[in-house]
Amino acid sequence: MTSVNPAAAFDWLDVRASARARAGLTRRLRSRPVVDPVLDLAGNDYLGLARDPRVCEAAAEAARRWGAGATASRLVTGTTTLHTELERELADFCGAEAALVFSSGYTANLGVLAALAGPGTLIVSEEYNHASLIDGCRLSRGHTQVAAHADPDAVRDALAGRTLRRALVVTDGVFSVDGDLAPLGELAAVAREHGAAVVVDDAHGLGVLGQGGRGSVWAAGLAGAPDVVTCVTLSKSLGAQGGAVLGPRRVIDHLVDTARTFIFDTGLAPAAAGGALGALHLLRDQPELAERVCAVARELACRLGTAGLAVSEPAAAVVSVRAPSPQAAVEWAAACRDHGVAVGCFRPPSVPDRVSRLRLTARADLTVADIDHAVDVIVRTAPPEAHAV
Amino acid sequence: MTSVNPAAAFDWLDVRASARARAGLTRRLRSRPVVDPVLDLAGNDYLGLARDPRVCEAAAEAARRWGAGATASRLVTGTTTLHTELERELADFCGAEAALVFSSGYTANLGVLAALAGPGTLIVSEEYNHASLIDGCRLSRGHTQVAAHADPDAVRDALAGRTLRRALVVTDGVFSVDGDLAPLGELAAVAREHGAAVVVDDAHGLGVLGQGGRGSVWAAGLAGAPDVVTCVTLSKSLGAQGGAVLGPRRVIDHLVDTARTFIFDTGLAPAAAGGALGALHLLRDQPELAERVCAVARELACRLGTAGLAVSEPAAAVVSVRAPSPQAAVEWAAACRDHGVAVGCFRPPSVPDRVSRLRLTARADLTVADIDHAVDVIVRTAPPEAHAV
Repeated sequence: MTSVNPAAAFDWLDVRASARARAGLTRRLRSRPVVDPVLDLAGNDYLGLARDPRVCEAAAEAARRWGAGATASRLVTGTTTLHTELERELADFCGAEAALVFSSGYTANLGVLAALAGPGTLIVSEEYNHASLIDGCRLSRGHTQVAAHADPDAVRDALAGRTLRRALVVTDGVFSVDGDLAPLGELAAVAREHGAAVVVDDAHGLGVLGQGGRGSVWAAGLAGAPDVVTCVTLSKSLGAQGGAVLGPRRVIDHLVDTARTFIFDTGLAPAAAGGALGALHLLRDQPELAERVCAVARELACRLGTAGLAVSEPAAAVVSVRAPSPQAAVEWAAACRDHGVAVGCFRPPSVPDRVSRLRLTARADLTVADIDHAVDVIVRTAPPEAHAV
Repeated sequence: MTSVNPAAAFDWLDVRASARARAGLTRRLRSRPVVDPVLDLAGNDYLGLARDPRVCEAAAEAARRWGAGATASRLVTGTTTLHTELERELADFCGAEAALVFSSGYTANLGVLAALAGPGTLIVSEEYNHASLIDGCRLSRGHTQVAAHADPDAVRDALAGRTLRRALVVTDGVFSVDGDLAPLGELAAVAREHGAAVVVDDAHGLGVLGQGGRGSVWAAGLAGAPDVVTCVTLSKSLGAQGGAVLGPRRVIDHLVDTARTFIFDTGLAPAAAGGALGALHLLRDQPELAERVCAVARELACRLGTAGLAVSEPAAAVVSVRAPSPQAAVEWAAACRDHGVAVGCFRPPSVPDRVSRLRLTARADLTVADIDHAVDVIVRTAPPEAHAV
């Protein structure tokens, strides 16, 4: 077992790297400059607030006033009145009893699932759920059963056949790849029939769906429901960083006492809390932002579809365009970028259905000229087969 | 199975809450104001940089310049040249080949363990490791064997007896509760004997140990080692938010391609990256900050010990004071706070050895008057039995 060369401990990484390179799966980080000439249809800044001067100034002011960091975990000295204010306003806006802010949406999802499920819990987890929900199921040690995409009957079957006393139905509100909606009303009804609670990750719904951007849970008439817990991010429509869990007060109190990713993590930096709060105020004052981003998404989809591309029907801010193959998707996205438009490129294994596609995200602040430019570039660079997919 | 009342799905939370209340384990969030008259010996702002005007301004300037958020995951459009600069400077400072920034130290630990271990890996995990490392072991699906605290022989036995081909030794560099050091040199030697790699969480070592605060891995002579990976936080000595993994380039490349908490999480907010970079510059220019925080810790420990309290020998910035019981620890910490000094209070199950204690953290910016005040209050409020523990 003696290893002469310590570097040998990581030699297996080179084998893996070669295999990924052969499969065309090597990823590369690309740094963007302050002033980026590229039109961004790839990020999740749905309302265009991340670089809104008022939101930036709210973040800057919070850093100057409160410090660059929270200095400790939330239960030690990492809670400021700014965090508390953000939690109260998020809960009020979304119609929830209470809210708890985490340092990211990822840790919020991990924390809530590990705290609400355990070995005695059946978790019925949607097939297309986000990685953080999947990891949360794993961490919770609950018994996870995957239900087919957007299929309340599959959820009913899983719940009806259970032997475990407690059950949790877990789903994205808006699915990140295709931007389609979960049938939340039906899922909640099925869960209720069977005494199960529901956890919705509304990362892509807040700021986009529901009255004035109150999210997919609000849109489904479930805001404030005593058996529904909602996770949101502060890093998409709210343009900052962090995540939050919204729900009944007793759920939030339980998280404060037991959620490991809350208890053992440094609190969210004041600048992120301040930025998110600033963005929330703008959204509250301009409810038309949510309508605008959906209208931009529909316009993008309509024009790309008219040009003969295979486009999803956008239910939120995400527009998905099918590509004929993984390689074609990569080349198409690269060609768009060469022409000044950044688009997402999803291919296996990051797509649940193994269909490669471009993923476009609408933004409320896209101009007519931006939309024209984006449509022109995407259509012009499309591989011939894309029209027949 | 039909539930008439949807709220019943969470009735079990009330049972749990009552049990915690009976056990005195209910936690309460306390919001601090901008100007907090309380002397903070509870947080992890070891160098006092979180509220240093230069660091705050660096965070504020980054928010104004780059936006309140990164707008996307790092591999989409969430990497700015600021992130890249921070990664290069962190790696240079700590003597590593490369670095990768995550949105928190928690997600950095989860990401690195899940990417470097799998079902075919033996993970030898230190008994007193941080929650995020424990969760990382769980997420990785590796075979985890817990080794006794600070016991290289136990690690050797675990490695020697293994049947799995790959192995990873995982440890905190500085243990968070008592502030003692892992025997990193011996652990690395044992790991090398057996072809295993080492992962060190240096959350409490960066900025405190090693030449000019380069950390516990540097102090152990392991900086740049080809079989050692170091995780650091940007939220403690560097006063901001986030985490980073430092190590051989091939490890960092592997993380970019495979670490789920990197790939599927929004990038660190620019303000946190800017604040951490500002703090790193100050630390680089003032290497005496690291010596100063250790000297403050030693002085606190010496004076509390002289007063008859059972104090740990501080090897870094953390000073631990034994309390006679969990209840006594809670009351002692509360009395300190009533007298204007915030101290940490650790008790089961948050302490691995089931000994309740106060946890004090030194700061490089504590004045002589601060130290006098802290010692006076802690001694004056000590329960009589604390002197005999």
